[in-house]
Amino acid sequence: MKAGILGGGQLGRMLLQAAANYPVETFVMENDDECPAAHLCNHFTKGNINDYNDVYNFGKQLDAITIEIESVNVEALQKLEEEGVKVYPKPSSLAIIKNKILQKNFYESINVPSPAFIITQNKNELKNQKNFLPAVHKIAMGGYDGRGVVVIKNEREIDNGFDAPAVLEKMIQIKKEISLIVAVNEKGETALYPAVEMIFNKDFNLLQYQLSPADIDEKILWKAEAIALTVVKNLNSPGIFAVELFIDTSDNVWVNETAPRVHNSGHHTIEANYCSQFDMLWRILLGYPLGNTKSILSSAMINLIGAEGYSGNVHYEGLEEVLKIDNAFVHLYGKKQTRAGRKMGHVTVISNQTQDLIHKANFINRTLKAKTIPPSILSI
Amino acid sequence: MKAGILGGGQLGRMLLQAAANYPVETFVMENDDECPAAHLCNHFTKGNINDYNDVYNFGKQLDAITIEIESVNVEALQKLEEEGVKVYPKPSSLAIIKNKILQKNFYESINVPSPAFIITQNKNELKNQKNFLPAVHKIAMGGYDGRGVVVIKNEREIDNGFDAPAVLEKMIQIKKEISLIVAVNEKGETALYPAVEMIFNKDFNLLQYQLSPADIDEKILWKAEAIALTVVKNLNSPGIFAVELFIDTSDNVWVNETAPRVHNSGHHTIEANYCSQFDMLWRILLGYPLGNTKSILSSAMINLIGAEGYSGNVHYEGLEEVLKIDNAFVHLYGKKQTRAGRKMGHVTVISNQTQDLIHKANFINRTLKAKTIPPSILSI
Repeated sequence: MKAGILGGGQLGRMLLQAAANYPVETFVMENDDECPAAHLCNHFTKGNINDYNDVYNFGKQLDAITIEIESVNVEALQKLEEEGVKVYPKPSSLAIIKNKILQKNFYESINVPSPAFIITQNKNELKNQKNFLPAVHKIAMGGYDGRGVVVIKNEREIDNGFDAPAVLEKMIQIKKEISLIVAVNEKGETALYPAVEMIFNKDFNLLQYQLSPADIDEKILWKAEAIALTVVKNLNSPGIFAVELFIDTSDNVWVNETAPRVHNSGHHTIEANYCSQFDMLWRILLGYPLGNTKSILSSAMINLIGAEGYSGNVHYEGLEEVLKIDNAFVHLYGKKQTRAGRKMGHVTVISNQTQDLIHKANFINRTLKAKTIPPSILSI
Repeated sequence: MKAGILGGGQLGRMLLQAAANYPVETFVMENDDECPAAHLCNHFTKGNINDYNDVYNFGKQLDAITIEIESVNVEALQKLEEEGVKVYPKPSSLAIIKNKILQKNFYESINVPSPAFIITQNKNELKNQKNFLPAVHKIAMGGYDGRGVVVIKNEREIDNGFDAPAVLEKMIQIKKEISLIVAVNEKGETALYPAVEMIFNKDFNLLQYQLSPADIDEKILWKAEAIALTVVKNLNSPGIFAVELFIDTSDNVWVNETAPRVHNSGHHTIEANYCSQFDMLWRILLGYPLGNTKSILSSAMINLIGAEGYSGNVHYEGLEEVLKIDNAFVHLYGKKQTRAGRKMGHVTVISNQTQDLIHKANFINRTLKAKTIPPSILSI
């Protein structure tokens, strides 16, 4: 079976690490032939994943194709699907998710609670919505990893909004943010991973660390799981889906957004769960039975993001100390260049002691830094 | 850092899956560019790992080089070591292990218990050793995976022996076979994995399944650990070493043989231990701290070997059923062709219940088969 991935970042890299357990011939397309996934596939194609011809020509040689980023050419995927290539997630579900306006309309149409919103086509329309503040402005197309999202607390901040089609979303009094990863196979069978609780770095809107299973009341969990399953089932597509949810201060559960792919909030599943999200996606693509989503042990996952103020050839400060931790698993993505906020790696800690997880997560956050090679090392 | 592997089989493949967690540029040399590891490295070189020039030219571009099979050109590795390339295992230790005669002399020289033996240079010399039977005849050079080993119970079987330099080893009344994997870093620090207990398929002298930790008396374990550490410390080399030992019916412990590399008896460490043997070897090659060898859960590991009577394009019979097992991890090595006895993959089961491990190992052995594509499937 020939299977391709659009995008060659760390998600592609981890997909390919898992692919090597299965009889599959792997293909990757990305515009950078030194990207994290380029050397781990059977066939690498340098190309633009947003270009119709590039995606179509890449995909027409394949039995199955998936994505590791939403920003891909959906029209080419639709054509490939018509021609019999398995496209998971389906282009129809990708089209909904890729555009935040369509995504919000979708939640509304299936009666899933999601924060109230207004659509703004440009900055002038945004400026008329002072009464809707405080709110979050999310650009409709192309946002990723906190880019394309700004918080607008009051009238003075309204100029920070986007002069492009966007969604203005009522601010929720967030108590917790959680993520639920759902696997769907070709038969429509689903498997739900234990909920993940996320702690964000406010500067970059990037995950600081996450805990799984989430420490939430069972009744709230049931609500969240019911919502996530409703979202995913209505997307009508095989694949892996990460549904990010807010729990507000009144214990209401709201959908924040959905990703139709393996997700940062599922990295811990490599070591902490029987079947990782990456393994699971291969099972779905290759038509094998769904795997076991249960946790082996509880986990914390810490993103390693490029430190503020450093840009250039990466140097991992504190790596030795973190590699000494008895129950930590270090994943570096092989990116030669760091810059502020760039995802450079992650570390998963597994333990049956929550305090141990929190303690180690904080230690790793303080200790491990993606900076640049210091002059003192260069001069040796 | 540029690091190379001589050999591109499943051990190389699993090494490369683990390498993708570290900042390392990987190189592989093998004479088959469709071998299991070929597409998972940064740079693949088609070449003969037994040829001086091929190995030297491959290695001289590298910072570090390791092996996944003993049958490599040691002279070229010696030259590379002299020129400053890290060669782990050291050529001096590899030279001892590679030749069964030198290996047996080595055990004797360090006073480690190993079955009594006689060296035979050819079949005529062997025929003079009738009084030494029953014994095991092991060819000095080039044996692998049960090839190059014959059991000679009595005079009538003596013709099955090798007409080449070999070791004739007194048969031990084996109660159990165990394996101890030892990691050694550049500072000479060691880390020992929990003992593994092996159950062999007598037809191919291939592992049928293994259990870890081994079910052996603590005092026998201490003896085995002391012997394994003595062997490895006297080899004076960083690397991963698998010491295979016999426990006889009187609870004596004997060294069978040592492999200076990641080993079949360590495959379970991928899921069952904090730091896998593959991860560990990268830590050693890259100069990072040794990892944690402890088990997360107990495990069984089942080799998937090519079924007797089938040769050709592989078809995995029973794969679906095995993929449904809640606590099993399937690894297929991506070999397109199967033949009787060929290692095609393995399955690891993790559990805190030994009975569950044994039950599942037997189920997997009965169920999962590497055969060829049946005509009924081909004709669809």
